[in-house]
Amino acid sequence: MSSTRLDVLCIGNAIVDVIANATDALLHTEGLVKGSMRLIDADEAERLYSHMGPAQQVSGGSAGNTAAGLAALGGRAAFIGQVAPDQLGKFYRHDLTAAGVEFITPANDVGLPTARSMILVTPDGHRTMNTFLGAAQHLPASALDEDQIRSSSILYLEGYLWDPETPRFAMVRAIEVAREADRKVAFTLSDTFCVDRHREGFIELLDSGRIDILFANQAEVEALAGIAHLETAVEVIKGKVETLVVTRSEDGALATQAGERADVSAEPIRELVDTTGAGDLFAAGFLFGQARGKSLEQSLRLGAICAAEVIQHYGARPEADLRALAGELAA
Amino acid sequence: MSSTRLDVLCIGNAIVDVIANATDALLHTEGLVKGSMRLIDADEAERLYSHMGPAQQVSGGSAGNTAAGLAALGGRAAFIGQVAPDQLGKFYRHDLTAAGVEFITPANDVGLPTARSMILVTPDGHRTMNTFLGAAQHLPASALDEDQIRSSSILYLEGYLWDPETPRFAMVRAIEVAREADRKVAFTLSDTFCVDRHREGFIELLDSGRIDILFANQAEVEALAGIAHLETAVEVIKGKVETLVVTRSEDGALATQAGERADVSAEPIRELVDTTGAGDLFAAGFLFGQARGKSLEQSLRLGAICAAEVIQHYGARPEADLRALAGELAA
Repeated sequence: MSSTRLDVLCIGNAIVDVIANATDALLHTEGLVKGSMRLIDADEAERLYSHMGPAQQVSGGSAGNTAAGLAALGGRAAFIGQVAPDQLGKFYRHDLTAAGVEFITPANDVGLPTARSMILVTPDGHRTMNTFLGAAQHLPASALDEDQIRSSSILYLEGYLWDPETPRFAMVRAIEVAREADRKVAFTLSDTFCVDRHREGFIELLDSGRIDILFANQAEVEALAGIAHLETAVEVIKGKVETLVVTRSEDGALATQAGERADVSAEPIRELVDTTGAGDLFAAGFLFGQARGKSLEQSLRLGAICAAEVIQHYGARPEADLRALAGELAA
Repeated sequence: MSSTRLDVLCIGNAIVDVIANATDALLHTEGLVKGSMRLIDADEAERLYSHMGPAQQVSGGSAGNTAAGLAALGGRAAFIGQVAPDQLGKFYRHDLTAAGVEFITPANDVGLPTARSMILVTPDGHRTMNTFLGAAQHLPASALDEDQIRSSSILYLEGYLWDPETPRFAMVRAIEVAREADRKVAFTLSDTFCVDRHREGFIELLDSGRIDILFANQAEVEALAGIAHLETAVEVIKGKVETLVVTRSEDGALATQAGERADVSAEPIRELVDTTGAGDLFAAGFLFGQARGKSLEQSLRLGAICAAEVIQHYGARPEADLRALAGELAA
């Protein structure tokens, strides 16, 4: 394997989060399932926005959050995603670049604005996401910088990319390029609704041996296996992938890797503020560990440390110095 | 005086805040005075933005914050300000409208984007503002809805509007319309640098009897009077205006009105988080009181209650139910 310039290259939907407080009554009126992510079109986005309260905007997107976490750990991270040539797109690019992430995918005018996810936060702290993919759903395979892919130890992809056809093709091409260059390919199932929508496609990705590292939370791995029992689901899926990582919120996380198994407990926290980005940051820590030759357990611990940081404040990107928090592990 | 449809109509710069953490070293490198607001052009905005960390965007603007506070108290509030027909402008309009503020000034394509203020937050919690006025500096007198002005008990203006010539003319025209309709005119000095820039103009506004209610903090009233002693400065200025309100942070506030004087202490708070918007929200409470026929002291207390709420969280717009917090006073 030739030397690499980057630790991890993340591909995902480039999305700005538009976050507002909401009542349970609003969720009910709008017929929304609390805690879920649904895709909406431009008209629905306009309509829902007009019913939402005053909002704040912060850059998000699952793989983008992971890339920001990697950079905060001192990792060499890059991101590929499609923004439009508009203010939201400039905002998104600024935030990733300012976080130390390489983001060179050009903006593309496809007649749609940069993606935004309208996130309704209910008083119980749950977040219900309504995502208008806009330009993000037009990430073409031609936007991939294949040298960049070949230069990265690990290629990391979010399951959400499977939703629209164009980025799905780009993702499949990226996997091809990475595998030809003998790089690792990592994939996250994103959320249970995403697994429900694409279970067959995801199983085929695994069975064709195109994924090396699979991330899932408990509900997602159970949905993928079609079995509502964690250990049984892990048994079914671990045979399909070299490395399987399952996060379990306050119950910690486990991983299997070529016959080995590791379990870690969750890192202690002072106060749970907002769980958004927990999975994204767990992936950042684990991938950093794997790219830097750490053990399976050390990689899990890195993931747990990063997840613990992000759930103690609002927003899905790290605020503290993750490298300092990780101490020896990030050295 | 004929009946009114609105309690307060606020005119100000329509500005989206772009907020990022920053080190003291960055302020030093950039030659910035901590805690100040400076105006910058498009090139400087671009340059500074590229040096700023990841940011969040929230709607702001001094008079806009006051309008949002008035609505949160149950007041009938409106806002006049200039946005561009772009994403930031839509975001700004959404936030005010969703807060219950009437905002009907049309977007205007003058070749400049909606205003943004890049706010650098240092670890000591201080905020240093770098404002690119963009479209906001092109608010023309023709954008005023004169019926709307005549329909409001109080017209409220921010001193920042005095900076660019076009909105200054609009402001002067708005004052004319309000006075002809026998409405009250309120004005805030905005900040000491603003007073330094426009002391003569502000004194002339007062001496010509065009302002009924003047808001200032201690430093601003001292700068306006040219005397570094609170009580002496109050003596000098109170003769120039029917009602003078001076806010003094943790030392409370005082007001003079036609021979009467009232002093209130600050409301107790649990934790000081972010002082941005304290003056804007104090004005909201006081104006609500005056529009609803409350006494001078009651109006000051309403101001103190609103200011206390906004400094206990990040951001310059209220999050709690101000009407409930104010209890009997808002009834």
